[in-house]
Amino acid sequence: MADLSRLSMNHVTLLEQCSMPQFVDVLARNDVRLASLWRDKAREHGVEKTAALVRERGIGVSGYCWGGLLTSPDAGEARQRRDDMRRALDEAALLGAPSLIFVAGGVDEVEKSVGEARKRALEGVADVVQHARDVGVRIALEPLHPMICATRSVLSTTKLANDWCDALAAEDIVGIAVDVYAVWWDPDIEQEIARAGKRVCAFHVSDWLADTKDLRLDRGMMGDGVIDIPRLRRAVEHAGYDGPIEVEIFSQRNWWRRDADEVTRVVRERFVSAV
Amino acid sequence: MADLSRLSMNHVTLLEQCSMPQFVDVLARNDVRLASLWRDKAREHGVEKTAALVRERGIGVSGYCWGGLLTSPDAGEARQRRDDMRRALDEAALLGAPSLIFVAGGVDEVEKSVGEARKRALEGVADVVQHARDVGVRIALEPLHPMICATRSVLSTTKLANDWCDALAAEDIVGIAVDVYAVWWDPDIEQEIARAGKRVCAFHVSDWLADTKDLRLDRGMMGDGVIDIPRLRRAVEHAGYDGPIEVEIFSQRNWWRRDADEVTRVVRERFVSAV
Repeated sequence: MADLSRLSMNHVTLLEQCSMPQFVDVLARNDVRLASLWRDKAREHGVEKTAALVRERGIGVSGYCWGGLLTSPDAGEARQRRDDMRRALDEAALLGAPSLIFVAGGVDEVEKSVGEARKRALEGVADVVQHARDVGVRIALEPLHPMICATRSVLSTTKLANDWCDALAAEDIVGIAVDVYAVWWDPDIEQEIARAGKRVCAFHVSDWLADTKDLRLDRGMMGDGVIDIPRLRRAVEHAGYDGPIEVEIFSQRNWWRRDADEVTRVVRERFVSAV
Repeated sequence: MADLSRLSMNHVTLLEQCSMPQFVDVLARNDVRLASLWRDKAREHGVEKTAALVRERGIGVSGYCWGGLLTSPDAGEARQRRDDMRRALDEAALLGAPSLIFVAGGVDEVEKSVGEARKRALEGVADVVQHARDVGVRIALEPLHPMICATRSVLSTTKLANDWCDALAAEDIVGIAVDVYAVWWDPDIEQEIARAGKRVCAFHVSDWLADTKDLRLDRGMMGDGVIDIPRLRRAVEHAGYDGPIEVEIFSQRNWWRRDADEVTRVVRERFVSAV
């Protein structure tokens, strides 16, 4: 049973329902004090305006989603993406977010090398580490599910995230985000979370629906799927993480179609009963 | 570049087009000498009749797909599934298949424990090992993609398959099937294939489409996706595997809708150019 004071709502859970001001209103109305901000939504409203808005309304920012896609073999594109990652870090700093979620990027369809893509992603992170330090925002390496390895993220396991952290040797400013949806299947997850220890800087929850229909947009509400979420919560807590728990549900066929207040009420209930 | 003499066609590649006799006709017409048989199709035609048919037509049987689903927490169902696995081994022996592909089974929706499901799957395999030995058919543990962990297979990595082989201590009769579609994303795949060594007893090819739409039925033809298939072929060859290479393409939106001879011609071309 998770403590509601740790609940952070990721804007993506209400992606289709809410602009930034609407999202902040829903949180305030439903007594949710923490938010993980979605970059597109923050930029749509304006990053400085968003920073002022959350400050005024007393909403704490637990994270900023996301920057990255650093796997391109094209030098020009790679440079552009690293610059964009630096801008995302600047925005995160302005918003008061302690960390920026890092999404690695996929595999080039001509090159067809997941190994080369991984090499470039790691080099890309190394290249922006000093900027992250300068602006005081942690880079949260987020292993994503192997089913989106081709298109979104070649960082497929927590073991690889730990290996990258070892290689970067920047424990002060690079951490790991553990998302139950991405890692629940991993036979080594408990040992790799223990290995991560204080690297764990974010914990995301949702659920894996047994009848899932889509590779990205069909996540379930906590309790509606097969993930033993409390087991994973205990694992990150045992590793030393006691920060916000972010609810991040991409759900084209269900939760994105419902009333935002209703979704938020269910999130609060399930946060207590299923996290 | 793979040698066409190693080409084995898995019946599932022509699942929608061909009954067993039609499948065998297509192979004979297109000079494909090896087949991996799909259990539903063999039983539909009759296992003994199928055995006679492939013998008459000079088609070698490289494998039999599949037996398993040994993760149920219900004792009665577990017993039934193990009995069914023994029958599948008997059928494989009758068909002259050197191995039976083992599909572990998924996670119980009430229990929600991938760990318990894994324990029971391993115990289930241990229980049928002696029968496999008695009938002379190898059990090929096939790691399947983590995206089907909930419903089809909790055996999600080649590392776990190796761990199970270590635990079973039955190297004579339990091996590992490497399917590029299931394992290409794995950061440890090369080291785990090397660790597997002579355990590798089957190698399956298809491709991961960048725009894949379905968790099971949208595999691509070799060369149409992002998998570096030759790299994985070299890895299994380096481990000591020089047997048949099975083409296994589940493709609801494309290849299952095409003429069987056309599909088989493309398979032969791509086997040379992209495997």
